[in-house]
Amino acid sequence: MSRITIVGGGLVGGLLAIFLAKRGHTVHVYERRPDPRKTDVYAGRSINLVVSHRGWTALRAAGVEAAVKEITVPVYARMMHDREGKLNRVPYSIDNKAIHSVSRGELNRRLLSEAEKLANVKLFFDHRCLDVDLEHATCRFELDGKEAVEVKADVVFGADGAFSAVRSKMAWGRFTYSQEYIEHDYKEVAFPAHPDGTPKMDPQCLHIWPRRWFMMMGLANQDGGFTGTLFMPHNATAQSPGFDSVRTPEQVQAFCREHFHDALPIVPDIVEQYLRNPQSSLVIIRCSPWQVNGRVALIGDAAHAIVPFYGEGMNAGYEDCKVLNDLLNTFGDDNWAEVLHRYAAARKPNGDAIADLSLRNFVEMRDLVADPRFLLRKKIEGHIQARHPDKWLPLYSQVKFSDIAYKDAWNEGLRHDRIMEEVLSMPDIGEMWESEEVERKALALLESMSG
Amino acid sequence: MSRITIVGGGLVGGLLAIFLAKRGHTVHVYERRPDPRKTDVYAGRSINLVVSHRGWTALRAAGVEAAVKEITVPVYARMMHDREGKLNRVPYSIDNKAIHSVSRGELNRRLLSEAEKLANVKLFFDHRCLDVDLEHATCRFELDGKEAVEVKADVVFGADGAFSAVRSKMAWGRFTYSQEYIEHDYKEVAFPAHPDGTPKMDPQCLHIWPRRWFMMMGLANQDGGFTGTLFMPHNATAQSPGFDSVRTPEQVQAFCREHFHDALPIVPDIVEQYLRNPQSSLVIIRCSPWQVNGRVALIGDAAHAIVPFYGEGMNAGYEDCKVLNDLLNTFGDDNWAEVLHRYAAARKPNGDAIADLSLRNFVEMRDLVADPRFLLRKKIEGHIQARHPDKWLPLYSQVKFSDIAYKDAWNEGLRHDRIMEEVLSMPDIGEMWESEEVERKALALLESMSG
Repeated sequence: MSRITIVGGGLVGGLLAIFLAKRGHTVHVYERRPDPRKTDVYAGRSINLVVSHRGWTALRAAGVEAAVKEITVPVYARMMHDREGKLNRVPYSIDNKAIHSVSRGELNRRLLSEAEKLANVKLFFDHRCLDVDLEHATCRFELDGKEAVEVKADVVFGADGAFSAVRSKMAWGRFTYSQEYIEHDYKEVAFPAHPDGTPKMDPQCLHIWPRRWFMMMGLANQDGGFTGTLFMPHNATAQSPGFDSVRTPEQVQAFCREHFHDALPIVPDIVEQYLRNPQSSLVIIRCSPWQVNGRVALIGDAAHAIVPFYGEGMNAGYEDCKVLNDLLNTFGDDNWAEVLHRYAAARKPNGDAIADLSLRNFVEMRDLVADPRFLLRKKIEGHIQARHPDKWLPLYSQVKFSDIAYKDAWNEGLRHDRIMEEVLSMPDIGEMWESEEVERKALALLESMSG
Repeated sequence: MSRITIVGGGLVGGLLAIFLAKRGHTVHVYERRPDPRKTDVYAGRSINLVVSHRGWTALRAAGVEAAVKEITVPVYARMMHDREGKLNRVPYSIDNKAIHSVSRGELNRRLLSEAEKLANVKLFFDHRCLDVDLEHATCRFELDGKEAVEVKADVVFGADGAFSAVRSKMAWGRFTYSQEYIEHDYKEVAFPAHPDGTPKMDPQCLHIWPRRWFMMMGLANQDGGFTGTLFMPHNATAQSPGFDSVRTPEQVQAFCREHFHDALPIVPDIVEQYLRNPQSSLVIIRCSPWQVNGRVALIGDAAHAIVPFYGEGMNAGYEDCKVLNDLLNTFGDDNWAEVLHRYAAARKPNGDAIADLSLRNFVEMRDLVADPRFLLRKKIEGHIQARHPDKWLPLYSQVKFSDIAYKDAWNEGLRHDRIMEEVLSMPDIGEMWESEEVERKALALLESMSG
């Protein structure tokens, strides 16, 4: 059995520790921040998470599915709020499948407590990674700004997020790397519950205020409140306001009134929150290779940070853990060079694909969900899926409700796009979308594009 | 007038110092390496450079054209060497235009000496940049491994190359950045002159041994020798040898015999050189923004490192300097915020375009130049250009012999590709390429695609 250093005790580091410790390895987790069970480390800058199929598959394999399920709220549909406050509910699947909303802090605390129950896991907080010796799998950490400890291990995992210190030490030699900030930043807005703890909106929906160039969304917490997030361009354009043009109390008030009218009674202090909460940026990280020498590997956001619009960042990281665990089952626990090589080869293309998928879903969420043509497409796809579940699984379901590799889902999604473009251009499609003719056409196109 | 710190005393830092000092600014240049006039800092890992139109335009504007011309060798054509040693000479233009080969070390030494003639330029060598305060334009440097000096300035330029220390300090906030290592590495091979100093190959050609997946090239030096460069994949594939598969003396000998047969008598110690010289990698760097606060800006490779296959890296950097100088002419020498903002906005799209163009030219050099269809295309384009010089300027000429913005050249080149694809598919094109029909077709297509 091996000595493992995990740098980063966040969502992925916590689950990875559980997987590896249950296999018998000795696992030491070093986290830069304080223990989140003692301090609220995410205050005011969190986006709620959703656990979807891949996440559950991994949590189940690690034996912590039930412990996590307790703290989640099922979400069955998108609820769109238009400018007049009119609602439109669109289910995520035709068979009542749910994704599960969870607070980042809650989930992190729960996983760390589960990890700590295992005798061969040790957690160290307030330890910042200073250096990683890639050849000897040795890390140096500092505690309270002073050099604290040098840790030798057999294998080091960098589970330390988008701004990974471990990754920065891999950035020598021929390390291909990109960080891309998207134009949109975000701000958290907390939606309170009624005084008696009942929610003010349907908690089993993801609420979206799509405004084409920007949007707000809200995901339920267990306390009846919602964590809301406003996504808006950093700089205003001719088409859109930006965080730089909505700054004074008057501007914020006018902005909220115009665009989020129906949210005002639900979040009476929305203006104060906007002015108080920090504005955070969103980055996409891609890199290669993900492992060096069979001794140091990246996992989760450290390897593939993505934008949050598919709610798959954490699920992708959990799938990394699950794939790694499966490879250890196949190739043994003392064959790290082989396992890490295969892990990186298997996961890198999927990391790239979910990055692309997530950007695509941003357009869908902020713009298309308000487009009647897009909603018609959803109906047609649902209809075909219901009649031919073996042939047609919409892209969203492939990503959120299946184990289909992200890269295969991406390719299939592009094929669906081309087919649906032709279907939507059929005359009178608005009236005849449930007809056999439409169905035949879609399936014939699918057949002709297969392989 | 301003105090300017230039980090990096290489090819671009040297020219920039001359431009700014001649305007009256006080310019201090800090270079990490020793003075190249005292030590050969490029030994064994250089690729020869070519000065092309944009380079000359900038050198002329800075008043150093003549000083540089003295140390260059004009190059009028590509000379392709096939496996049997058969030669094929293809001129770069229809009107005998030349690019100019120059040794990196020679050019660097010459520019530094020209800069040092100016009273308001000071050069500091062996100074490594440790930190840059982006707000106050203050740099810290170390000398001999010890903290040496803190330098306050009005404006800092990072002219410190692909691995820019200045850029690394800009990588906070929303800094979009990518580094991409291509699969090919390179090795220098020195081609000696005859004992009497006469060259063993035509010095007025760029010599290429195109071998589809890899290639060798050679560019003349003034001493009658050539600086040769072998470009080959880092790792071998089913199609191609790689540096990892050509390692032992026996492997190198067999490899050179098979692929570079006619070079063996010219470079009798080619095997020893291959085994001795370092293997270097090639990286493409893209980033944004190029300037912060109107006080710190990137220039040359620090902003846009590209692969060397168009021979435009230095020329692009020199064009940066020229554009900056033009903006100072227009907006004045005390308006850095405006000037640097416009500089970055003007140059960033061109930096991206020349990066793409350079990758494209690699395929052309290592593969297409050995393709009869490609050579026919060159002939057709030359023919149309000769008859309609106002309408058709081949992409290569736009890049190497004009001031047309790289991004416009790139777009025009893509248009030419589409036109030539149709032209080359005309029946009997091999026989009728000089006919009026071909000419009419090409121009009609150009007309229909314009605008």
